[in-house]
Amino acid sequence: MFTVTPIEGGVCAPKGFYADGVSAGLKPDGKRDLAFIYSDTLCSVSAIFTTNRFQAAPILHYKRESIDRTNFVLINSKNANAMTGKKGIEDIDKILSHAKSSLKNIKFPVMSSTGVIGVPLPVDKIAKGIDSFDLTKRSPDAAAEAIMTTDSYPKQVAFEVKMESGCSFKIGAMAKGAGMINPAMATMLCFITTDAVLPPNEMHSMLQECSKTTFNAISVDGDTSTNDTVMLLANGKSEIFNKEAFIFALKKVMHELALKIVADGEGATKCVAFKITGAATEDEAAIAAKALSNSLLVKTALYGEDPNWGRIASTIGASGVECDPSKLTITFGNVTVFEKGEILFDAEREDRAAKVMKKDSFSIHCDLGVGSGSFTAYGCDLGYEYVKINADYRT
Amino acid sequence: MFTVTPIEGGVCAPKGFYADGVSAGLKPDGKRDLAFIYSDTLCSVSAIFTTNRFQAAPILHYKRESIDRTNFVLINSKNANAMTGKKGIEDIDKILSHAKSSLKNIKFPVMSSTGVIGVPLPVDKIAKGIDSFDLTKRSPDAAAEAIMTTDSYPKQVAFEVKMESGCSFKIGAMAKGAGMINPAMATMLCFITTDAVLPPNEMHSMLQECSKTTFNAISVDGDTSTNDTVMLLANGKSEIFNKEAFIFALKKVMHELALKIVADGEGATKCVAFKITGAATEDEAAIAAKALSNSLLVKTALYGEDPNWGRIASTIGASGVECDPSKLTITFGNVTVFEKGEILFDAEREDRAAKVMKKDSFSIHCDLGVGSGSFTAYGCDLGYEYVKINADYRT
Repeated sequence: MFTVTPIEGGVCAPKGFYADGVSAGLKPDGKRDLAFIYSDTLCSVSAIFTTNRFQAAPILHYKRESIDRTNFVLINSKNANAMTGKKGIEDIDKILSHAKSSLKNIKFPVMSSTGVIGVPLPVDKIAKGIDSFDLTKRSPDAAAEAIMTTDSYPKQVAFEVKMESGCSFKIGAMAKGAGMINPAMATMLCFITTDAVLPPNEMHSMLQECSKTTFNAISVDGDTSTNDTVMLLANGKSEIFNKEAFIFALKKVMHELALKIVADGEGATKCVAFKITGAATEDEAAIAAKALSNSLLVKTALYGEDPNWGRIASTIGASGVECDPSKLTITFGNVTVFEKGEILFDAEREDRAAKVMKKDSFSIHCDLGVGSGSFTAYGCDLGYEYVKINADYRT
Repeated sequence: MFTVTPIEGGVCAPKGFYADGVSAGLKPDGKRDLAFIYSDTLCSVSAIFTTNRFQAAPILHYKRESIDRTNFVLINSKNANAMTGKKGIEDIDKILSHAKSSLKNIKFPVMSSTGVIGVPLPVDKIAKGIDSFDLTKRSPDAAAEAIMTTDSYPKQVAFEVKMESGCSFKIGAMAKGAGMINPAMATMLCFITTDAVLPPNEMHSMLQECSKTTFNAISVDGDTSTNDTVMLLANGKSEIFNKEAFIFALKKVMHELALKIVADGEGATKCVAFKITGAATEDEAAIAAKALSNSLLVKTALYGEDPNWGRIASTIGASGVECDPSKLTITFGNVTVFEKGEILFDAEREDRAAKVMKKDSFSIHCDLGVGSGSFTAYGCDLGYEYVKINADYRT
């Protein structure tokens, strides 16, 4: 038994963690663009990365170094350091050795980047930014702000997990992500800190297990970036080791951040849960749910607050999963519009379904009626703002 | 040897074919919404249909009747007769038997529909429309107009194919489609007429072969509808049988209509050829090319006329095909911006690439450098108009 309570402090909530964000001049408007997370004790670290074949330099560097512990993570926004070849990795070597000499007690530093693809890192600017770091600072808000790109607000969560004994551990996290979010992998950066004691060899599978129904269940535009990273840092300072409680808390952290990312989807005005039940298998449920969250026709209908259930049906039919109109039931919120082949969608139900769609957040539930597989994917609508944001992102 | 010459006349260009479009009151603005194609001789017919599991009633009806010849095709817009269950098929039975009694000499009539999903057909309106048909009319423009939904213009082509002997056959076609166009299948309606002599048992494979690089290579929004149909009608009246010449002409007809559909993509301002070469296999080339034509981030960058080659690279990397940055070359028009791992994208090339992107039509060529597979997919940009058109399509 354990209790989980939301707390303040983001990545600095767990014992021994420090963070800050500064302006290193990468963002032309002088906003924060360079962050660090520091732990005064060496952490076990594990990360899951994008499935994109063109993984960015920071990911290649992390893998080359076979990182399994660290006390310092450097993160920049505005530049992804992707498609930058050997030079991209050499630039990280330069930056991180500068960090080691400029700051004290930095061990096995790692770097993470997000922003425009295909532009070399401004090494000197970043080095100067590092020189301005104060590792005794606990400014999680500044750090969360510094890793933002098209995000409209910083994304942080933290929980205290209290055991029956009265002892507790803490888990905190920050994330960025508002577009290029694809269910193939949590397309974003996310850094999770904890003072729980974690067996290093199990951290990776914990991350993978928890990402399935959280970061891997969300979609903004179906694109998978070159830089996606979810990193977990554990310094063990709470001296608490309880795997069940930790996984529960980790999933909660990842779920809340996932929903924050969808809600902040570029130009999004609503967050929708696409719930599939009765699929032949759980995998087929996930395919159908993600097809809905990725369909442009569904996303524009959401934007128009139009209960166009035909597009929902058509998208499920096109997804390739086992289905049959005579077994399918479609429900907007609590309004069933199509039930096992019968069209219930009349003026009264259309009216009620349209009301459901006016909400900021609601569910669309499709029961396929062919098995017992279920999955819920989360997505958002697509409106003019998305086009505006993405038509000229680089400038 | 044969020569192929563009001619007027759309589906009425080949001998013995008649067509017209009338207003049956399905479109609220009184525009044409009901068309027929009639041949004064019985035709061999073959069709390929959507891969969507929820095939619309007209497709189910066609299959139930095991249609292999006909002299009358009825097409309505504004209502897809999809997800309408048994009633949808019964409605077609009613309508087509009405046609048989109202018009003379109708044999094995077939129906095709496009429009909103999940609304029963207005049987009486359509019956009245049929009563107004004049089967001696040759009004291909009116027919092509009547099958439009969100299309901004009717789409027709016709060719005369002259053999060395001086004899010739003709092929004509009309199509509708401007959205819900997905490479999984030509998501649209297309009716092709010819007076060539075709072996009935080879018509299906001819359609399939020609669709691979034409209708199956285009994308507007990655959605696959419930009604997609490409139908080929051959009445043999020219008495010409030349398989090679016919396949050449068929592919040309389908290619031209495919490009017309992309160019008329909902809200599209440009038509882009995504050319992949050097892929491990032709299938992988097609996967990468279609990933580009479907990527929201690529499509919005096209709209913004932004030569954001990083998104091109990232999309290829995310598509799952074999690739390696050090072997990849990316070229906008004739401007190479990334060559085998080296970023050539400087201010001068950015300027030139941006100029390429201002054109109505251009190519983006990616050589993956890992094999000899190649494929070209065609797509369009995505702008505000797409959102506007699709946010409230039903009303």
